[in-house]
Amino acid sequence: MSHLPSIALHGGAGNLARYAGTGRLEEAESVLGHLVDHIYTMLQQGASAVDAVTEAVVRMEDTGLFHAGRGSAPNQHGYVELDASIMTGHNLEAGAVALVRRVKNPIKLARYVMEHTSTVLLGGAEADALAELQNFEMVDASYFQPCDMIGGAIVGHPSSPSTGTVGAVARDTHGNVAAATSTGGTLRKTAGRIGDAPLIGSGTYAKNNVGAVSCTGIGEYFIRNAAAYAVISRMELLGESVGSAAGTVMQHIHDLGGEGGLIAIGPRGEVSMPFNTSGMYRASIDAWGKRIVGVL
Amino acid sequence: MSHLPSIALHGGAGNLARYAGTGRLEEAESVLGHLVDHIYTMLQQGASAVDAVTEAVVRMEDTGLFHAGRGSAPNQHGYVELDASIMTGHNLEAGAVALVRRVKNPIKLARYVMEHTSTVLLGGAEADALAELQNFEMVDASYFQPCDMIGGAIVGHPSSPSTGTVGAVARDTHGNVAAATSTGGTLRKTAGRIGDAPLIGSGTYAKNNVGAVSCTGIGEYFIRNAAAYAVISRMELLGESVGSAAGTVMQHIHDLGGEGGLIAIGPRGEVSMPFNTSGMYRASIDAWGKRIVGVL
Repeated sequence: MSHLPSIALHGGAGNLARYAGTGRLEEAESVLGHLVDHIYTMLQQGASAVDAVTEAVVRMEDTGLFHAGRGSAPNQHGYVELDASIMTGHNLEAGAVALVRRVKNPIKLARYVMEHTSTVLLGGAEADALAELQNFEMVDASYFQPCDMIGGAIVGHPSSPSTGTVGAVARDTHGNVAAATSTGGTLRKTAGRIGDAPLIGSGTYAKNNVGAVSCTGIGEYFIRNAAAYAVISRMELLGESVGSAAGTVMQHIHDLGGEGGLIAIGPRGEVSMPFNTSGMYRASIDAWGKRIVGVL
Repeated sequence: MSHLPSIALHGGAGNLARYAGTGRLEEAESVLGHLVDHIYTMLQQGASAVDAVTEAVVRMEDTGLFHAGRGSAPNQHGYVELDASIMTGHNLEAGAVALVRRVKNPIKLARYVMEHTSTVLLGGAEADALAELQNFEMVDASYFQPCDMIGGAIVGHPSSPSTGTVGAVARDTHGNVAAATSTGGTLRKTAGRIGDAPLIGSGTYAKNNVGAVSCTGIGEYFIRNAAAYAVISRMELLGESVGSAAGTVMQHIHDLGGEGGLIAIGPRGEVSMPFNTSGMYRASIDAWGKRIVGVL
């Protein structure tokens, strides 16, 4: 039986109101609108959910508009550290990398780890070394153009908590779901810090016939709530709708003092995209063709 | 209201039958028996759950009998990489370190990260640097005495998957729960691999009025199932007993081809310690004073 495809993307949740007047919000909205249409068309033409979320995240890593890939900012010691993870719902396979420094597209390396190694999470210099060995595109410091910098000036508060992430969740015409998340962190973040983005169950989870989730925000709160899996478990064990499950988990994060948001797809291709920050870059087309693109 | 204390420990699940005849199983059983009595007495005298699990894991790290702390084995490149995590159930605070190389007791550093930083998970050289800065006891390569080596010979199959971990879960007389897990990996493991031990939700989770969980086994399967949190969510959302929740999650891991075990405490201080390997080093005293010490 053929299923109706469904896709949701995020480019991070945070204090996006600080970009008002810079043109950044309009640019991001335009980019996400075109991207969600492109990925939805891929899915309609039969692309797998895992190919769809990979392509979506690669493109967001490459734009330089978000805190991932090209848009990543140097940490407190002056170098970038990138994290990413991916999961496929039909077999519960997963792959992730943490603290890589020279890989152009961490999500591609995470997918390689998922498909070609017995490891789920690979960290540090060994992950960069694997990428180099497998001829992934490598970059040096000059590649990164921190998205917090506009016209040479830092926008907003550089000391604000790390909340930058991109992510995608999709359901394909076979009914398979997948989720992917990638981050480069914000300016001057703690070196060696690993947030929720590369952690299966925290930032990313996907399970067929239940759903797929990708989170963004202050990662520590998402880790402490096992946020991505918590949304899945509420849908699976309680039969909650994706909106109710995602909203409840965001409330738990809020109750602990956490900020951020998440995107989730439910068992019939429903989409929910709650956040408790001033904005979340987001775009979705659900199984009924309903299209949402928004920032604030 | 005073609660009856409860404690469970594990020293790893795996093919322990390979140690038959070496004296190792009897030695480990004796060590765990004395340790569980000691920690239970601490709890009876009012020690907090977090102090109890810290002390239990520190002592197991120091014995050299298990794949953690002193007993850790060099990876494929000839150096040890240690991971640990800890979580307290009354406030859902958590701390973890991954890929540290020179810290004598990674669980102490994980607790420091929990109590004194805004980060949950710190990885690599930065975690070692934090330990040094904070005057933690540092060790060099000569400190480690791989527990797979007995009398200079490797016992069993050095190429077998990484399944070595130690862990503890406890409930104190205030009803607070905590969980802690630490690992050093087995001989020749993949450099840079991060298993479930340092991952909150995968290897470790604790939530008051629900329970506490620490896992051991082939970490990738526990990550893909969000195993520690999965046990918690079944108890919390479905009201399952700790035995039923732990057993169901172990069945899911088994169904994917995974091996290992876990220890869990339920809301009234019940203990469950399922495993699907030939053995799991384990010891517990539940809220009714029932004492179990076993290996196979």
